[in-house]
Amino acid sequence: MPLLVVGSVALDSVETPHGVVENALGGSATFFSYAASYFTPVRLVGVVGEDFPQAHREMLESRNIDTSGLSIEKGGRTFHWKGRYQGDMNTAETLEVHLNVLGTFDPDLSPKFAETPFVFLANGSPSMQRKVLSQAKKRQFVVADTMNFWIETQRDELYALLREVDGLVLNDGEARMLTEEVNLVRAGWKVLDLGPRFVIIKKGEHGALFLSREETFVMPAFPVADVVDPTGAGDSFAGGFMGYLTSVGKTDLASLKTALAYGTVVASLNVEDFSLRRFQRTQRDEIDRRLATYRGMMSF
Amino acid sequence: MPLLVVGSVALDSVETPHGVVENALGGSATFFSYAASYFTPVRLVGVVGEDFPQAHREMLESRNIDTSGLSIEKGGRTFHWKGRYQGDMNTAETLEVHLNVLGTFDPDLSPKFAETPFVFLANGSPSMQRKVLSQAKKRQFVVADTMNFWIETQRDELYALLREVDGLVLNDGEARMLTEEVNLVRAGWKVLDLGPRFVIIKKGEHGALFLSREETFVMPAFPVADVVDPTGAGDSFAGGFMGYLTSVGKTDLASLKTALAYGTVVASLNVEDFSLRRFQRTQRDEIDRRLATYRGMMSF
Repeated sequence: MPLLVVGSVALDSVETPHGVVENALGGSATFFSYAASYFTPVRLVGVVGEDFPQAHREMLESRNIDTSGLSIEKGGRTFHWKGRYQGDMNTAETLEVHLNVLGTFDPDLSPKFAETPFVFLANGSPSMQRKVLSQAKKRQFVVADTMNFWIETQRDELYALLREVDGLVLNDGEARMLTEEVNLVRAGWKVLDLGPRFVIIKKGEHGALFLSREETFVMPAFPVADVVDPTGAGDSFAGGFMGYLTSVGKTDLASLKTALAYGTVVASLNVEDFSLRRFQRTQRDEIDRRLATYRGMMSF
Repeated sequence: MPLLVVGSVALDSVETPHGVVENALGGSATFFSYAASYFTPVRLVGVVGEDFPQAHREMLESRNIDTSGLSIEKGGRTFHWKGRYQGDMNTAETLEVHLNVLGTFDPDLSPKFAETPFVFLANGSPSMQRKVLSQAKKRQFVVADTMNFWIETQRDELYALLREVDGLVLNDGEARMLTEEVNLVRAGWKVLDLGPRFVIIKKGEHGALFLSREETFVMPAFPVADVVDPTGAGDSFAGGFMGYLTSVGKTDLASLKTALAYGTVVASLNVEDFSLRRFQRTQRDEIDRRLATYRGMMSF
């Protein structure tokens, strides 16, 4: 079964204690798509500028990622993020943001894409996310991401979105901002009151917390000795999570829990190199081996 | 089998967003002993002043904690810590410390206590910890805790201690300080190079990381919606960990992993009220029920 993702495709310049990359392929939909492609075919919706290298598109296509929804805006430049990580690398310091073509991103789903049953709305304006949803006529299961900026500037639109999605993914700081609740369990419960069936609170190097009305799941991060670049870890997590669910075509609690584990493991691979480099030398069997190791680290 | 602990017994004044307690029973050896007493008889070694209420000693004795090694220093006052937790309550702010009788703590083990095979050296000066070890003639398994102050002021003594213990328990900040390594996996490996067979890095509300040369285990914290007072969480964790191991009389890797889970669960109970209040209304069966819930939260 295919999986639809709508989000950003970027050229990132990133500096960490381990090195520097300039204009490397990035963006939420990119990391998500590659991560999900280990499990299921992906349909990517986004926008880039004329500067976007054709080689990137070909690389994504080679992963069974349908890029027919990745439009090129004439005369435009691709979204560019420049950031730096220091110390424990838990927080990105944004040095430059050039929205470029992303600033007017207004996606229209093709008839084929509009029929996709599993949908992930990567970080973007809630009004845009809702507009995509209204086009996804055959949607069965929708998960959205968001960020501080939208909580601050489009809270009502975000609330409206939350009444229309099955799940929300956000990080701990965002959960606290959205709910004005310090304790993450209580913050999660407050998110559930806003509509979604479940919420996943990402805690960076500390793993993730899943809450629904029925169950609480908690997953530590897979311990990584060589964190080279955390960029895209959260989107890779979401990609592994949604990719697995789409591949099994189920969203019961047991499947959601296994999906959390896959998301964790896929994210742990992504941070071991810049951009998509680690993914590009990773096959599915390595993910399954790491999943087995992960299970062994905490089963008792 | 009995378990020996050497550490502080205190009267704590604590303020959190949930309330205030004055001169409540606390101290590393106290939290440790109560937590361990769910699993095994405990032998406590410490010192208090003449102000220490006899009722506290009787309460500990009622838990099968042998307090014959808890000496009363004539004319002295009990160690007093006053602290505050704010916001996410992850960090204690120390307002006052009065070492009092703890300042000259120089424990002598009774012949009976000196024969205890399982030993926990709660936070204290490495020279004192080593002196205790030299008296524990029948020791089979020794785990030590430490803190920033000793890393800064007695590094050589601490190194000497690390060559004599089976395991070290410390928090993430302390691990980074001891090893000058930001990444916790690498910090753990460096600790292993200093001597112990394993190291447990406590990450507060984010759980714990266990490293040995053979295995890496990772345990998330049990999610708690009502964190009332984090004081003693780390010592309760250690008490559950050591108590379980002592009760089964084994220290193989599988037992160590189960012990980590018990420590996690016991600590999660402790933080739900001030001082020892939550423990005082907790029976062993509740610990086992929470352990089963915990396993269910992350097994996939």
